[in-house]
Amino acid sequence: MSSVTRRELMAFTGLAAAVLSRTAAAQQGQAASGQDRSAAPRATSRARDLTDDELEAIFNRCSNLGRWGADDELGTLNYITPAKRIAAAQLVKTGETVSLGRDISTTASKVDPNPARLMITFGNGPGISDYFAMAPHGMTITHLDSLAHFSFNDTLYNGRKRSATMTAGGARWGSIFAMRQGIFTRGVLLDVAAARGVPWYESNEYVTVADLEAAEQRQSVRVSSGDVLLVRSGMERMEQERGLQDTYPRAGFHAECAEWMHRREVALYGGDCIEKLPYPSERFPSAMHMIALVSMGLPILDWPALTALAETCDREKRWDFLLTTAPMRLPGATSAPVNPLCLF
Amino acid sequence: MSSVTRRELMAFTGLAAAVLSRTAAAQQGQAASGQDRSAAPRATSRARDLTDDELEAIFNRCSNLGRWGADDELGTLNYITPAKRIAAAQLVKTGETVSLGRDISTTASKVDPNPARLMITFGNGPGISDYFAMAPHGMTITHLDSLAHFSFNDTLYNGRKRSATMTAGGARWGSIFAMRQGIFTRGVLLDVAAARGVPWYESNEYVTVADLEAAEQRQSVRVSSGDVLLVRSGMERMEQERGLQDTYPRAGFHAECAEWMHRREVALYGGDCIEKLPYPSERFPSAMHMIALVSMGLPILDWPALTALAETCDREKRWDFLLTTAPMRLPGATSAPVNPLCLF
Amino acid sequence: MSSVTRRELMAFTGLAAAVLSRTAAAQQGQAASGQDRSAAPRATSRARDLTDDELEAIFNRCSNLGRWGADDELGTLNYITPAKRIAAAQLVKTGETVSLGRDISTTASKVDPNPARLMITFGNGPGISDYFAMAPHGMTITHLDSLAHFSFNDTLYNGRKRSATMTAGGARWGSIFAMRQGIFTRGVLLDVAAARGVPWYESNEYVTVADLEAAEQRQSVRVSSGDVLLVRSGMERMEQERGLQDTYPRAGFHAECAEWMHRREVALYGGDCIEKLPYPSERFPSAMHMIALVSMGLPILDWPALTALAETCDREKRWDFLLTTAPMRLPGATSAPVNPLCLF
Amino acid sequence: MSSVTRRELMAFTGLAAAVLSRTAAAQQGQAASGQDRSAAPRATSRARDLTDDELEAIFNRCSNLGRWGADDELGTLNYITPAKRIAAAQLVKTGETVSLGRDISTTASKVDPNPARLMITFGNGPGISDYFAMAPHGMTITHLDSLAHFSFNDTLYNGRKRSATMTAGGARWGSIFAMRQGIFTRGVLLDVAAARGVPWYESNEYVTVADLEAAEQRQSVRVSSGDVLLVRSGMERMEQERGLQDTYPRAGFHAECAEWMHRREVALYGGDCIEKLPYPSERFPSAMHMIALVSMGLPILDWPALTALAETCDREKRWDFLLTTAPMRLPGATSAPVNPLCLF
Repeated sequence: MSSVTRRELMAFTGLAAAVLSRTAAAQQGQAASGQDRSAAPRATSRARDLTDDELEAIFNRCSNLGRWGADDELGTLNYITPAKRIAAAQLVKTGETVSLGRDISTTASKVDPNPARLMITFGNGPGISDYFAMAPHGMTITHLDSLAHFSFNDTLYNGRKRSATMTAGGARWGSIFAMRQGIFTRGVLLDVAAARGVPWYESNEYVTVADLEAAEQRQSVRVSSGDVLLVRSGMERMEQERGLQDTYPRAGFHAECAEWMHRREVALYGGDCIEKLPYPSERFPSAMHMIALVSMGLPILDWPALTALAETCDREKRWDFLLTTAPMRLPGATSAPVNPLCLF
Repeated sequence: MSSVTRRELMAFTGLAAAVLSRTAAAQQGQAASGQDRSAAPRATSRARDLTDDELEAIFNRCSNLGRWGADDELGTLNYITPAKRIAAAQLVKTGETVSLGRDISTTASKVDPNPARLMITFGNGPGISDYFAMAPHGMTITHLDSLAHFSFNDTLYNGRKRSATMTAGGARWGSIFAMRQGIFTRGVLLDVAAARGVPWYESNEYVTVADLEAAEQRQSVRVSSGDVLLVRSGMERMEQERGLQDTYPRAGFHAECAEWMHRREVALYGGDCIEKLPYPSERFPSAMHMIALVSMGLPILDWPALTALAETCDREKRWDFLLTTAPMRLPGATSAPVNPLCLF
Repeated sequence: MSSVTRRELMAFTGLAAAVLSRTAAAQQGQAASGQDRSAAPRATSRARDLTDDELEAIFNRCSNLGRWGADDELGTLNYITPAKRIAAAQLVKTGETVSLGRDISTTASKVDPNPARLMITFGNGPGISDYFAMAPHGMTITHLDSLAHFSFNDTLYNGRKRSATMTAGGARWGSIFAMRQGIFTRGVLLDVAAARGVPWYESNEYVTVADLEAAEQRQSVRVSSGDVLLVRSGMERMEQERGLQDTYPRAGFHAECAEWMHRREVALYGGDCIEKLPYPSERFPSAMHMIALVSMGLPILDWPALTALAETCDREKRWDFLLTTAPMRLPGATSAPVNPLCLF
Repeated sequence: MSSVTRRELMAFTGLAAAVLSRTAAAQQGQAASGQDRSAAPRATSRARDLTDDELEAIFNRCSNLGRWGADDELGTLNYITPAKRIAAAQLVKTGETVSLGRDISTTASKVDPNPARLMITFGNGPGISDYFAMAPHGMTITHLDSLAHFSFNDTLYNGRKRSATMTAGGARWGSIFAMRQGIFTRGVLLDVAAARGVPWYESNEYVTVADLEAAEQRQSVRVSSGDVLLVRSGMERMEQERGLQDTYPRAGFHAECAEWMHRREVALYGGDCIEKLPYPSERFPSAMHMIALVSMGLPILDWPALTALAETCDREKRWDFLLTTAPMRLPGATSAPVNPLCLF
């Protein structure tokens, strides 16, 4: 970062936030090549931005350091017990399946200048083969973030040193490979847009703890230990009506939601709202990722498709279901494209 | 192919089969670059090689052309009904999970000269991102074959013309994208090596229908409509003890097994034995793939890891379980790396 | 192709040509994914479209089959003798250098949906490394076409069978590797746009033999054996003023120009005009590439940057110079990105 | 690096050097994934290892910071004047061409676990297209190092801040794109192995200034301003006779040679000997790269093929010639595969 202090930064929200936004973009692995996001305005409503000190206090309060042993790489996936899996299987009542994967595009867009690439390779015989390449992080491909996707002060989840862990060929620890036994548990959708009675959250709005609890109440459901929490702020609908949105600004979770997930013992978080972007912080440019991945050891399901799921929940009047997915077993990867299934 | 007739070919099994094996390798997308497999010996035991006419008769008898409508892309996945899914969920009794994915290597080997590649990309901030590339087909990565992976006489499953379907950027039809709602059904492991009382099938041996039924009898289990059939011939154990095997020769299914799967209405086949390689056929260099994918519309789970699964089945004295997986939603791809989960 | 006859095709130039254009696009390796070019109008001026029989007659008259031996892979590069190189070096009089490479973009565009990709890889120390990937063929990257880039009736240059030559991992013969000793010879720019007194050729116009000779006369220069011929039709200027053009329609060489290059013993052809696209032919969808690469063994320098070169020629009142370039030594590749240098 | 001091490090040459070697490997972009080089012995002969302070003194004495202006990206390529090019062209006397490119392999080896990849892509028509990917840095592909390939204390050539220059998508400054006008100048081969009368330098030996001057004297040639200096220590011959060598240990230049090149105003250095590896330094793990690229602004031609060149020089009794090459115009890249040509 720079020598700009937190105070000066707060005083010049527009420009400084834009600068930070570019940093955050790079940090999230989104190639900002050729794109100037300095014009991104920033405004906040429904909750106030926390200071770095407040964020660090939350970071510390949410810590699961050592909770499951010094060598633990699973983090909050530890909340998913065999009994939890058995109970989750009992949620399959109609046999209907809903996929949470977004279609993977091979076409560049303003939020994805480097899309996946697929090639059919030459062959003379009856067989047809292919090759593909992708960078799953970013805002287009539905993917799992491994715990090694973010660091804070050169530290990864469970106290591992980032500088001793990362190599050009992969993360020695905390990679997606740690989740190779997959995820099979209860999923809960909290439709915070529906609970507020809005089609979508505007890009300057925070999702708050009150919003989560209002959705629980409206839906008569409660998030419990070992659940996958999915939160819908209506981003897909906004894009259907307004077209593809820029990376900045975006609605996102208020940091208190992280602490709420910590108390509820959420195993995996996924939603169409994660970071509120851009974020006016020096030390926490991606506060949610940093608190969740580094402190809690809570992996993130980034960019799930939630429209069909919400429709099914509305129709079935059920907001909990079996959710299952598993990352490819690629040692060292900090991400994996996934296509999670929800069973009703 | 060449002008060698079927009869001449049968007369010179050793050399001719080796030549064909290279063709088959290319057809399966396995780069044979720099590798000479012409020394691969060929021998057959436990069943006789069928003639091309016999294979074509099986191909025709197994056809599901039009069975589920002229536009069907799902093939035998249609056997998996909501009721089947509900019943499969009831198989979760202990909550134990077994992954069927093999670890994805980024190191070249004799059966995989072009392994997956993973790179951590440069970043200045707390975030860490990556990029990977792979060609899932072949004999190393656990992957799903889409129905467009093979053709016969320029025709794909359900009568689609290959030449009108394939482009450099993907298959317009029959790609892995057709399976985007995933697979969630009963899985059955038939441990044919255990049923025969051998540690593994030797590379010249066929797996026969009698072997499948002997395993069913030993295990007191029956493969039924909509199941995922997994067959273990002991290949992983052979490699543990003898080291990595060549692509050729390899043990595989006798073509009659395809017809057996057709009668049993298997939804997906996976195993450590698929093609018997090299295969002495002009028109059916990869007979199992061609009958399954093109005629039956039966997708294949290629190279699942079966050792841990077999151990769990032995311990639990159960050979059926819930099996679930879902390919990434990449339109046009003929393959997808997967990490299927079995729940006990 | 289809069962449409040549005659029917000529009768429906607009639609049929558009259909063919898509075929040609695929043939040139330009991913047409997601792009519909069927609206491309077609018209022809300044020369008439030749029939397939006329094209095949030119193809046959230009043949260098066997001219330099049955194993020759160099084709018309054989015209470049040591004496030619010595003479070319004498053309260096001012020491000024002009690069013919276009800047390689990593941003998608309408003629390049799959641009080059560059990544800086993670590292902890003082070193910085990178990785890049590209598909050089198409209309954006300055590249050399190897002789194996095109076939006619399953035949490559010098009578080699395409089906026996191509593998998924590269061409066994006629690849860019054949040119590994590089190109160092006299270059001649014929500025046909300047000779006609137009800023650029419109997209429906042919470049004709008369145009080439008019440029020779205006410039007082003559193309001779072993030269690299560069032809400027003003495409870059048109794009500067009108913006990026579609792949179709495009101005191009009339097939008679191929025969003219054959008589003049041109060693390498490069220009901002190659194929007239779309091309209304069943058998010769890319007539220039097919006659040059397959029949003559004349490699092509695709998409050189000619604006700075033309300016230098105008200023220096010289249209010949030393030209040198060399492809990377990648065995099997049918293309290589290059940055040719012209020395004055 | 670690907290090991220079003194401790010197005391434990074997182990410590091995640790450093792995760091250096990563710094040079060579993926050390899965390879343990800790067994690499280290010994030094023919000159003594310099201390970090001595290296930094050389670094400072060789600096060209600001010499060609604050915005200069060309570094020592500025020594190549138009007059130099004209004179270089006069060296073409026989018209013989020698390529300095090594054949690019797509097969993994112990010094290149991630080789280049080439794929022929699917197509239905007469055209054939391809795609390739590579990481040019390392010890197998003949490539140019851009000035942004190395940093010292977060500083690149000409005082640019590395942290402000590097992005995941490329270097904003000092990339290979800066050399887009190419290199066309006199080349000089100093065959230090021949001058010493040895077939090759052993891996523990330094190439010294005395060696360079002895070769000049034997060959009656003198390296002058604007030359490309090529130095042959016999590495290719050693590999022909002994097989592929490990990355460590390797013979290399003594740091005083950098200062000698500074005095002689060498424009580009290339050779089969660059770094002496492993190198027992904390601050200068790749001393030659750091002094050349960062301080002098001297680009490096890494891994040229010198055997054919040396044979030609011996036969012609000439050790100077025209040398020309040009990197692809890929903005941001820190390397480019090249195939330099020498003309006699």
